Amino acid sequence: MEKSGIAALLVSTEPEVRYFTGFHTPFWQSPTRPWYVIIPSTGRPVAVIPGIGRAMMADTWVEDIRTWSAPNPDDDGVSLLAATLQEFVPPGEAVGVPMGHETHMRMPLNDWNALVAECDGQRFVDTTDIIRGLRMVKSDVEIAKTAHICGIVSDAFEALPNLLSVGMTEREAFQRFRIDILERGADDVPYLVGATGRDFVDVIKQPSDRVIEGGDLIMFDTGSMWDGYSSDFDRYFAFGHADEDAQRAYRTVWESTEAGLEMLRPGVTTTDLWQAMADVLTAGGSLGNDVGRLGHGLGIQLTEWPSNTATDNTVVEEGMVLTLEPGMTFAPGRMMLHEENVVVRADGVEMLSRRAAPALPIID
Amino acid sequence: MEKSGIAALLVSTEPEVRYFTGFHTPFWQSPTRPWYVIIPSTGRPVAVIPGIGRAMMADTWVEDIRTWSAPNPDDDGVSLLAATLQEFVPPGEAVGVPMGHETHMRMPLNDWNALVAECDGQRFVDTTDIIRGLRMVKSDVEIAKTAHICGIVSDAFEALPNLLSVGMTEREAFQRFRIDILERGADDVPYLVGATGRDFVDVIKQPSDRVIEGGDLIMFDTGSMWDGYSSDFDRYFAFGHADEDAQRAYRTVWESTEAGLEMLRPGVTTTDLWQAMADVLTAGGSLGNDVGRLGHGLGIQLTEWPSNTATDNTVVEEGMVLTLEPGMTFAPGRMMLHEENVVVRADGVEMLSRRAAPALPIID
Repeated sequence: MEKSGIAALLVSTEPEVRYFTGFHTPFWQSPTRPWYVIIPSTGRPVAVIPGIGRAMMADTWVEDIRTWSAPNPDDDGVSLLAATLQEFVPPGEAVGVPMGHETHMRMPLNDWNALVAECDGQRFVDTTDIIRGLRMVKSDVEIAKTAHICGIVSDAFEALPNLLSVGMTEREAFQRFRIDILERGADDVPYLVGATGRDFVDVIKQPSDRVIEGGDLIMFDTGSMWDGYSSDFDRYFAFGHADEDAQRAYRTVWESTEAGLEMLRPGVTTTDLWQAMADVLTAGGSLGNDVGRLGHGLGIQLTEWPSNTATDNTVVEEGMVLTLEPGMTFAPGRMMLHEENVVVRADGVEMLSRRAAPALPIID
Repeated sequence: MEKSGIAALLVSTEPEVRYFTGFHTPFWQSPTRPWYVIIPSTGRPVAVIPGIGRAMMADTWVEDIRTWSAPNPDDDGVSLLAATLQEFVPPGEAVGVPMGHETHMRMPLNDWNALVAECDGQRFVDTTDIIRGLRMVKSDVEIAKTAHICGIVSDAFEALPNLLSVGMTEREAFQRFRIDILERGADDVPYLVGATGRDFVDVIKQPSDRVIEGGDLIMFDTGSMWDGYSSDFDRYFAFGHADEDAQRAYRTVWESTEAGLEMLRPGVTTTDLWQAMADVLTAGGSLGNDVGRLGHGLGIQLTEWPSNTATDNTVVEEGMVLTLEPGMTFAPGRMMLHEENVVVRADGVEMLSRRAAPALPIID
């Protein structure tokens, strides 16, 4: 921050507030109240939050907690936030705000404009790079939490063939899988998408009343949570039998992942990683994909920086937690994805998800 | 929109996109990609979205779907969005954007600034009132969905005494309750907070390893979902016995709710409603509360406009779905909340949650 001439950071979203304070509640699902945390270049974070959050914030490592009675549409914390910023950021100095890719400010645009107007002695500058740099490299505690939820979900995927059968609806399959993950100790299963059938391309789908038939594929992709950290990987199964195209496509995305796992280590770039995986997909007859990348960071959120793309070029560091997620349309209207979660160690990768079977598993 | 001189609305958040298109996926938990929908003053909505969403959006009533390959940090849909807006909004006319209370734009600030710069022939104006007016009054289909999830959660709360016992940890209690709601047919339980003990004020809390003891109160508050619509109500129970202060406080918040239920009908205001409930709390010895309101709207989101406050003054209309949520600190460090969900009908209210017992229920 000092190098960038920034006197304090200002953040407003759930993952950012949690990262800098430890404040953890699903109350963010209520859009009513804005929440702010200021991180001065020296000293502890300062919370500027609605009164309803005081008791919980007092249980974190934050000591300076300033509250207002929210909701108050006439001034929902803006004047309190402006006064607090002015206390920590001398006139002429800069407030760093995440303004770049994968960020947003969770506050009304009118309030943002009012804040900038009230703080007319301060400058507001983009601080995406600082926050991105901090959050991309995980601590041992963060890695352990991700490993724990990945273990739970790996167990659940291994047991899935015993849970599902032909004749079940998609809704029933989703319900059983979600409950099974919870029974194994996940705190929540906020992200669960899936599809069934011989042909599908929509890989972010919610369940329908469709009945599972013999010869169907099923894809489940879940971001389950434990102690505030997320897994993110998928698995495919076939009911009874699968056609050769599907089996070959499964093998291709599995081998694409294998190529990524073999070359991933500190010093390579996310673009090198993308290239290694993309080469296998191309050789395997990929018709492209709409996902836009072949994996990403993982942690507090289901997806985080960086992205494994042709242009991302992030240098991989020890302690990064990444997903390898090759996907391809293998025939018109037919999509195959694969995903594993890993942590980058000094000499390569350590699996966090349990490696998938090399051949498409069949549920009898 | 015509009355306000607005040629098109632009929205970017999950509930707004879902409201105007029917697009429903938990994929929004990935912060990577922005999503946009334009609603012209005449004609159907236009989706400007990442390619990964094309298949799903094509299953909605939206016909005009424009996609880009995301993530693309150099231009993550901004130029496509600007060009599309310019097609629907003639120079000199206005794009309506939600900028007011309880809104935000889910896009990077840098992209917002770039969009405004590219659309220098168009004006961007606040359209919170239009969206607020539309969303506050629910259709019969919306009401039926909320009623369904409220029924499931009412059943689960009724069965809760059989599920919990002294000696269980908070974590176990949360897990059992969440799974029970899912087994009863909820799609998801994204919002579950609770607390145990004789004294607590934090009512947005996640579970700890604390062991439940005789004489404890337990509070659970859940926003469970079915087909994209949320419940939002809480219940208190005592284990074995409860002191008189807690029993009296329970009775006070129950009667405060009763006062609200009796007077709520089209034509009264949310401030009238607040006053009717607040009078009972004051008479019952309330030491105030940090929640900031005594209930709110409910629907796609856990909380929606309006707010039951001393200054909100929204005129209640038939078809509004509201929570009545009186709360009070009844002794230093001791908080009591109560909540019911209702729909406003021509001549009063219809319960969506099943009315709580008038006396604090005891779990033996």
